[in-house]
Amino acid sequence: MDDGAPITAEDSGVWRFGPDQPLRLDSGASIKGLEIAWRSFGTLNADRSNAVLICHALTLDQHVAGLHPVSGKPGWWTRLIGPGQPLDPKDWFVLCANVVGGCMGSTGPGSIDPATGQPYGLTFPVITIGDMVRAQAMLVEAMGIPRLAAVVGGSMGGMQVLQWAADYPERMEACVCVASAARHSAQNIAFHEVGRQAIMADPDWRGGAYAAAGVRPEKGLAVARMAAHITYLSEAALQRKFGRELQNDGLSWGFDADFQVESYLRHQGGAFVDRFDANSYLYITRAMDYFDLAAPHDGRLVEAFRPARAVKFCVLSFTSDWLYPTAESRHIVRALNAAGARTSFLEIESDKGHDAFLLDEPVMDGAMRGFLASVRNGR
Amino acid sequence: MDDGAPITAEDSGVWRFGPDQPLRLDSGASIKGLEIAWRSFGTLNADRSNAVLICHALTLDQHVAGLHPVSGKPGWWTRLIGPGQPLDPKDWFVLCANVVGGCMGSTGPGSIDPATGQPYGLTFPVITIGDMVRAQAMLVEAMGIPRLAAVVGGSMGGMQVLQWAADYPERMEACVCVASAARHSAQNIAFHEVGRQAIMADPDWRGGAYAAAGVRPEKGLAVARMAAHITYLSEAALQRKFGRELQNDGLSWGFDADFQVESYLRHQGGAFVDRFDANSYLYITRAMDYFDLAAPHDGRLVEAFRPARAVKFCVLSFTSDWLYPTAESRHIVRALNAAGARTSFLEIESDKGHDAFLLDEPVMDGAMRGFLASVRNGR
Repeated sequence: MDDGAPITAEDSGVWRFGPDQPLRLDSGASIKGLEIAWRSFGTLNADRSNAVLICHALTLDQHVAGLHPVSGKPGWWTRLIGPGQPLDPKDWFVLCANVVGGCMGSTGPGSIDPATGQPYGLTFPVITIGDMVRAQAMLVEAMGIPRLAAVVGGSMGGMQVLQWAADYPERMEACVCVASAARHSAQNIAFHEVGRQAIMADPDWRGGAYAAAGVRPEKGLAVARMAAHITYLSEAALQRKFGRELQNDGLSWGFDADFQVESYLRHQGGAFVDRFDANSYLYITRAMDYFDLAAPHDGRLVEAFRPARAVKFCVLSFTSDWLYPTAESRHIVRALNAAGARTSFLEIESDKGHDAFLLDEPVMDGAMRGFLASVRNGR
Repeated sequence: MDDGAPITAEDSGVWRFGPDQPLRLDSGASIKGLEIAWRSFGTLNADRSNAVLICHALTLDQHVAGLHPVSGKPGWWTRLIGPGQPLDPKDWFVLCANVVGGCMGSTGPGSIDPATGQPYGLTFPVITIGDMVRAQAMLVEAMGIPRLAAVVGGSMGGMQVLQWAADYPERMEACVCVASAARHSAQNIAFHEVGRQAIMADPDWRGGAYAAAGVRPEKGLAVARMAAHITYLSEAALQRKFGRELQNDGLSWGFDADFQVESYLRHQGGAFVDRFDANSYLYITRAMDYFDLAAPHDGRLVEAFRPARAVKFCVLSFTSDWLYPTAESRHIVRALNAAGARTSFLEIESDKGHDAFLLDEPVMDGAMRGFLASVRNGR
């Protein structure tokens, strides 16, 4: 389909859970009055068996297809969702929810704390990937979906996919984990820490209470985004796209953006602050850093997956992804094999780096199409 | 030798060039009253033929051996310079000078502009690797050294080595270029731009005029250092050194440094601001970004090296260096071969990343020892 082509039976909303249904968190805290913003494409069938949950990455949101209400641009996975696409809304009920801790309608640090009437800021409890998944499970249950046909996601979305398999294997038939990992590496944590320090170094961050002061730590958040953005690309992609090409004729002999790659990064940083909340960035990167699916099992990942041996897995990685390199996917696949789960694994040749999972990668689309068709036909 | 063991015939000083000897810059500007801070080990022999110039990396300085006057720690290449080491001061006169633009005694943005009596700040002219080398050539000439036995450096020091070969081939016999490149890649520029933006986002930077205000952009500079520091290590080294090890028992469920890698990075950032100047960081990273030895020759690197075909080259790289990967060294070596220069090239197996050139790498020491002995014996 063309980007932005209409999808019939599209819906969206914010699910408000009553005070009697708090979200229990891994930290021991809980969130009362939980709200989860969601968007769906397609129609839930009579036996409620055609639901696919999409899990989004760090800075993305529930607007996986259709048009984004803020940017007006097509959703981030329109390539995969639409008429004739691997997730065709005539066959599937595709659901995506903003993660708890996010800033696109779900409860997060920018929400009003019902206990104080003020924005949470840093009084918001630290959340985990497990908490994000628990909130999604509450939503899915509230919507009356007993079992998901598939849970699909890339990057942090892939972490949620694996957490779903570990925590709710009986509530899903299959899953697709793209460009992800079963735990955050030291280098991943290091890059996140640089971003957090950049935000917290901005005087407009004000200890997280910037909302009350009517300011935003825009400069710090932009620097955080710039650093992170480099890790989403490959050196080869940067070299091919920009090389040492200049913005203008000749060098400026100053500190303006001489090189196109500088200008591109500055644009990425500037555009990001218009659509994302700094405290959400802190909380979500923290959740990713805390992610280690094997930790509750003394480091034995196979034990995390053992309850999920009836789930069908599809694991995809990209050759030039140095943020979540193929070695991390192999680590997942080895544990799945040891647990006796049916697993298909594909490393896709691409020089686009981690971002490949969001870009035009026909081999990924094909793998997804084939796997989801087998889920549908295998019933 | 043990780190810090005494070296006989050690000397240091600041060379002050008169107003009649301005440093002409590639930008077209010039610096009057140039000062170059230097340090030496060993004695220049009677025919002045035993001088070796060491070129330092981005945040290093002339204190290549002996004790550093500020930190009190051993110089950064004590492993290579000392009795019994590849550069034994009984044989060699080892000279190292702080680059122009630096902050350890050579003229830089923190120096007083003689025209105004105020610190230069951002009125300091943008400099290049070529300018750094031109200043070194002035120093070497002023010291009465007609020809260097060797020019040796790693990282940005390696860029200066290559620039020396391109600009002053008749004034050198040999050179060693370690973990470097003939031009800065798009990814290198991108990481530098993140660091510069972090500094310039700090309100205490004050458009570069922080000295007059009695403040320093410490937070911004620390973030810049943290981001850069990740690029100096390899993922394997980070994983081996830190993995997901915690600072304390259990998670903090907050934004303190939970993981050892976070604590390490914060320490690196904090220690750096005590020893380095933010504006110098801007100027020196800019010089590296501008570096492209082939640019004046329409992109043909072989033409840059053709005048240097009588110089003996030793090029070294490390397998896990992703900042200046071996491909960059191969690119240099191919051009040297095409130019007809005598070149020895070695890729050294190491998982320590770019920083390997500063760390305990016996294979590098051995290669350096063998090459420098051949220079000495080949006369």
